[in-house]
Order: sequence, then structure tokens, then C-alpha cells
Amino acid sequence: LSSKPLTVGMIGCGTVGRGVVRLLCEHATLYQQRVGRPLDLRRVLVRPQSLQRHMEADVVDPALLTDDPDAFFAQPLDVVIEVAGGRGAVSRLVYRALEAGAHVVTANKALLASEGPELFAVARKHNVSISFEASCGGGIPCVTTLLSGLMANRVRGLYGILNGTCNYILTEMIDRGKTYEQALSEAQAHGYAEADPTMDVGGHDTSQKLALLAALAFGVRVEETRIACRGIDDIALSDVRAGLELGYDIKLLGIAEQREPDGPLSLSVEPCFIDHRALLAQVKGPFNALSVVTDGAGHVLLYGQGAGELPTASSVVSDLLNLASNMYPTQFAAMRLTPDCTQPARILEEPRQIGRYYLRFNAMDRPGTIASLTGVLGEGQISLSAVSQHEEAIDQFVPLVMLTHDTPRANVQAALDRIAELDITTGQTTLLRIVDLPC
Amino acid sequence: LSSKPLTVGMIGCGTVGRGVVRLLCEHATLYQQRVGRPLDLRRVLVRPQSLQRHMEADVVDPALLTDDPDAFFAQPLDVVIEVAGGRGAVSRLVYRALEAGAHVVTANKALLASEGPELFAVARKHNVSISFEASCGGGIPCVTTLLSGLMANRVRGLYGILNGTCNYILTEMIDRGKTYEQALSEAQAHGYAEADPTMDVGGHDTSQKLALLAALAFGVRVEETRIACRGIDDIALSDVRAGLELGYDIKLLGIAEQREPDGPLSLSVEPCFIDHRALLAQVKGPFNALSVVTDGAGHVLLYGQGAGELPTASSVVSDLLNLASNMYPTQFAAMRLTPDCTQPARILEEPRQIGRYYLRFNAMDRPGTIASLTGVLGEGQISLSAVSQHEEAIDQFVPLVMLTHDTPRANVQAALDRIAELDITTGQTTLLRIVDLPC
Repeated sequence: LSSKPLTVGMIGCGTVGRGVVRLLCEHATLYQQRVGRPLDLRRVLVRPQSLQRHMEADVVDPALLTDDPDAFFAQPLDVVIEVAGGRGAVSRLVYRALEAGAHVVTANKALLASEGPELFAVARKHNVSISFEASCGGGIPCVTTLLSGLMANRVRGLYGILNGTCNYILTEMIDRGKTYEQALSEAQAHGYAEADPTMDVGGHDTSQKLALLAALAFGVRVEETRIACRGIDDIALSDVRAGLELGYDIKLLGIAEQREPDGPLSLSVEPCFIDHRALLAQVKGPFNALSVVTDGAGHVLLYGQGAGELPTASSVVSDLLNLASNMYPTQFAAMRLTPDCTQPARILEEPRQIGRYYLRFNAMDRPGTIASLTGVLGEGQISLSAVSQHEEAIDQFVPLVMLTHDTPRANVQAALDRIAELDITTGQTTLLRIVDLPC
Repeated sequence: LSSKPLTVGMIGCGTVGRGVVRLLCEHATLYQQRVGRPLDLRRVLVRPQSLQRHMEADVVDPALLTDDPDAFFAQPLDVVIEVAGGRGAVSRLVYRALEAGAHVVTANKALLASEGPELFAVARKHNVSISFEASCGGGIPCVTTLLSGLMANRVRGLYGILNGTCNYILTEMIDRGKTYEQALSEAQAHGYAEADPTMDVGGHDTSQKLALLAALAFGVRVEETRIACRGIDDIALSDVRAGLELGYDIKLLGIAEQREPDGPLSLSVEPCFIDHRALLAQVKGPFNALSVVTDGAGHVLLYGQGAGELPTASSVVSDLLNLASNMYPTQFAAMRLTPDCTQPARILEEPRQIGRYYLRFNAMDRPGTIASLTGVLGEGQISLSAVSQHEEAIDQFVPLVMLTHDTPRANVQAALDRIAELDITTGQTTLLRIVDLPC
């Protein structure tokens, strides 16, 4: 058992990187007790244009800072932490680290989602590992849980609230009756949302995380581009309210389901209604959570902070400690769950995915409308679990809500297309999935 | 990397044991894919009086069954699973397994809580490991999370709903207004409670689990007998209702807190009020959950089924898979968190433990009573955050509820003793802790 220092280099020193430095300083003694060896941060590589700022920032010892990759790699390192984000130049540095025989710890979900198979293959070729707990769910140990804690289970479904920006916006709409636009600008004011929020509210950030988690849970290779992705930017407050009346809260979920063992995977990112009493519906504000439905342990839920300096840094450093003990490299070598070792997933295309749905029509306020609508749905083999119509009409149109039983999405879409041709509704009909989680 | 079969023996074949056999049969192919080697159950040791029953039960291949320890240990085994429970004879078999060089996987919290230091020392002496995910929280990967997922964090507090029987009873009292006695007999009818429910409702089962989890979280040795333990058997429906009015749900919590780094631990098992909006308050029925409050990841919560055949078996088999990959033995050798390697915890005795408290007095319905009560509390340096009195008097006594700010328990107890001497209340005053969890 090695007791010599674990030598560490870090690429990038933004929010997460500063958190890593803070934890390594504050908890140096604790960590040495836990793994029996010191963690020795030797070098920090930053971009030339930010070197001076870092030199003056009093976060990292200036002697450790460099903007020169050759200087960074001049001495051998046991581990390279990559918290720079992005691809391109950063990707080349990660390959260089692996080829130099360093384990890599990364928080870079975009890199893993796009170049995972190649990266993991290079790591195996050089007998090193890639850790990535920080790439999904911030401080929540999702990856460890799927890779070891729940290892004995066949996973039936993953249901994740994986983007804090979206969950903050939806919580404000649900709990405080704000519109999407109001909630988004507040999220931006609080620093929960970027100036350009597209990656978050469009669902792409969730989609990248889902691709990584589903790959581990189901032991397959998942391309993010194969995930049907809908965002929250067209959610109307009227639908949020209609859901609340029916006992549902709206959440942006990343969903991966395998209904039959070895059957195809249904993958989607979409705003969904969840029964208000389900624990996942109670996840508020910028928090994240992952529900894992399994055949052995049943329903297991993990909850915590999905982003932020220290939560994400704590996942990076947990990876580092599991490297220092040699635990993770042993696991990485034995477990064949990374995308260089697995087959591409068989994916059930969105039209064939099965779910329950919420439909809200702006229906004409005249006799026979409900009969026409339900008639079209019935012809499409769509059976209804609830119908609700309030008394108020707006310009001769009334909101009419229907909930379906399990049905392929294509059937619902075909029925909506057929209904749009009839002169009985106006505007866009809302179609939202309802997810029933085991309690 | 070994690809030869992992040879496994199992001691005991009750509910959990049957679940283990089921998982090993159903998922043989999946497990071999995941860890690259087969898991080979070679022998199952049962008690002589139950051998015949097991032979006829069609769960375990009769050729594997034996009631003879010598036959069980005749061939070397890589791993011995202990799911018999209890101590005495079972304890001796566990020592024998370790001394024979077998790793041990156990679900036996009573054994670990009482003989942990000796057992772990014997394991280290023989270069084998002891896994115990199944000993706490059924199918919830609490142990893995503390040992690896959250490894970079200093833990500030553990707050666990660790006993499904108690949580079922309290949920029935909260949600359906049942009395303790009604809820208990229903729990017994549903099989959620034993005929003799003392271990559960008295808090001892929670206490054993808390001892194990706190030892891992804080890196110290915790004797279960040092944990201040109160059960739920004297919870009155009137307190449940008073809590609900104030926005609190009552839960039996195992609590371990360390307010200062390296400071003393506050350990207790007690019924507590939790803000209804906190996720832990939403854990219903027989489910379990563990809130881990840390300095890095913040608040992380794990939720799932705390007992039952397949959930508990899934934790046993996850341990087995993490042994098969050699991951856990590597971790066990490096991490010095088991009680043979740690110092006894410095424990803050219950009177010095700090918390917020709920007090319900049966106060005399006459002028000056509130002044007298609050006067005594004030003299004891106890400051109040809320006072509530309803209009109805019962036999000239009115229920009077007060909530305190943070205060040492001894101060509250002394004030209550003083108040009992005055002629202004009747019967027992209720004293319950209020736990404020970060959201």
C-alpha cells in the first residue's frame, strides 16, 4: 500500500477549481487520515490571458501556476484534474494527460458525452482511469451509486432532476405563480441562470448528464444526440396551474427506462407532471435529485446540490481520494461499464415511447365538442383516466384537460394532428408527459 | 485481474438469504458482465432444525445445503455471506470464516455494533475485508456513500429515518389520525412490526444503525450504549396534532452531530419535529432515509426501502460484486475508518446537547400562568421562538405549546423540573426536539 504523496495537477481554475484548492487546503489532515497518504497539488494550468489574474488572486500558490502546457507536463503527475470545461484545446490536454500515464478526474460532461468512447479507450490502453463524479449532479454521488452502491440491481428507470436552473424556474412558477419570463430573469439575477440560458432551459445540459448516467445504469453506449429533448421555455403558467389542481407538479426530467430486461431504452428529456406526493416533486429551487427504480432495491432517490463551487469540488476531491486509495483504479479496471467496453444502446424512438399524457385543449364552447375530441382519441386507442372542464369560457373557447392511460406517444400525436384539422379547438394543444413514480 | 469464479458460502437462509439466492440466479449473466467473473454459491449453512425444511423448499439447490459447520468450511471459500443474524454461535462462525481467509459480507448490525473492533481487527490480520452495506438502511447504499461517494466532505450531521416500523406507525398517526396503539397493531397485521416490537419502537434498532453510520461519517469508534435513546411508544396523538398545526411532522431520528471540527459528537435517537417542507418529513410509511449534512456537498439525502427481502439482499449482493472486482478489499485496506483503526468518540452527554425544543404544558387556566411559565424558562436562559394557546380548556387546564431557540437540553430539563414543583401545570409536560434541516 502506497503512502507516498499522490501528485496532482489541475487544468483550469474557475469556480470549481477554486473549490478544489479550498478543500485540499482545509482538509489536508483529514484526507491524509482517510487514505493514508497526502494529496500534493503540484501544478495548476490556466489560460495565458488569465495567468496574471490568478497570480494576484491569492487562491493558488503563484509558484504552482503556469500557462504553459509543457511546463505543466514536465514532471510526471499521478492525477490530472480537468475543471476547465469545454472541448478542443482542453480535450487535447486530457488526451495528453492519459498518454502520460496520469489518471484523469473530470467534471466535463460535454467532453465525456461527445468523446467518451475514445477517451476511455485511451485511458485503458495506458492503464489509467477516468473519474467523473462531478460531471453529473454536482455534490450528489450519482456515479458512485450506480457504479458500486446499486451494482446488484437491474435498473428499470432513471428519473432525474439534473438542472438546477430549470428546477429553480419551475419552482418559482409552481410555488409563487410567476410566469416563465419572470422566473427566468430572477434566476439570472440570482446567478442561477446564464445570460444565454439555452443550454439549461432547452434541456441540453440535462440531456448530456442523462447520457452519462444511462450508460452506467444500463451498461450501454448512449449518444446524447439520440435523446429526444424538450425544454421548459414554452411552459405556460396555465398548464402549471391546471397541473396543481389535479395534484401534479411540473419538473424537467431526464428519463431513461427499460421496460423489459435487455429491451430497448426509452430516453427523453422533457417537462413532466409528477404526483405532488412523490418525493421527486418535493425537490425545490436549484436542488437536483435522481430517482433510480430497480428490481432489487426498489426505488432509491438521491438528493442534493447539483451545482456550485464546493458541492462540485467535493465530488472532484472524492474522486481524487478514491484514486489515492487505489480503490477506483481497481474498480475501473474490473468494471466494464464505460463506453469503450459497451455496445451502443438500442433506443426506442420517441414516437414508440409509452407514457401517460396530459392534454390541454382550447375547445370550442358548443355542444358536441367533448364528444368529438374523445371520439378521435378513442379511435386512436387512447383511453382516458380523467377529463376536467371548468366553467369559464374565454372568447368562446374553454380550457379542457384530459389525462390518458399508458399509450405510445405516436398515437397521441396522431390524434392531436387529426383534432387540429377539425374546427373544434384553437391555438396550440398542450401535450405533457405524466410520470408515475413508485413511492 | 482474476476471471476465475468467486466462491461464496452463505450462513443463514431466511428472508434475506432467499433474496440473495434469487438475485444470484436471476442475474448470473448480468453480474458476470459487470465484474468479469462468475459468482459461484458453493454452500449454504443452516441450523440442524431447519435443514429438512430448506431441503424441501425449492429455493436453494439441496446439494448446497448443510447443517455442519465443518462441511461448510471444508473447501476454501473466497467470501462468506452472513445473513443468519444474532450473535453467539453466528459470531463464532464469522470469526472462523475470517480466520480461514474468507472475506465476510454481513447484514448483522447487532454483531457489528457489539463486536466491531475485534471483528475488523481479525479481518485485517488475515488480509480480508468485512462488508456491511446491508446492515444499515436495507437497499439504500448508505455505507458506500459515506465510504466513497462523500469521502471529500467533513460531515456535520447525520439525520436518519432508519426504522421502517416506527416510520410506518408515525405516518399513520400523522396522515390518518390514528393513535399509537391503533397504528402499532396495524403495523403488526401488515408484517411491518414484530409481535414484540420493543427493538423497533424503543429506538434500539435505530441506535445500532446510527452507531455504525456515525463511526464511518466521523472516523471514530461509537459504542451503541453511549447513544441517548428514546422511542416512540409514548407519543401522544395530541402532540402529533399540535405539531401539524405548527407545520411540523414527527419522525423518529437517529442523530449524530459535530458542531465544531474535531469537537465532541452529539448522538441521540429520539422522536423529533421536522419542518413539513423538509424532504425528510416527506418520507412516508415503511421507507427510510438518511440526510447527510456536509461542509462541501451541503445537504445530501438518500431515500429508499430500509428493509425487506430483495432490498436488503441487493445490498448484500452489491457488496459481493464490489468484492469480486477487488474494489472493496482495496478500499478496505487503504481506508482507516473501521473501528479497529479509530479512536473512541468523544461524546457530548445528553444534558449538554444543544437543540431547539417543543414543550407542551397542561397549564392551569387562570391569570398569570403564562407569565409564571415563561418566567421560569427565562431564568433558565431559555429563549422562546413561539407560544401558542388554544381557547378550549379541559377540566380547567389548557394545552399550552412553546417552542424554544437553541438551548442545552439540561437547561430545559431543569426548567421543567422547576415548573413541576409549581402548582400551575398538571400531568406530564411533553418535551420533543425540533430539528431544522437545511433545504
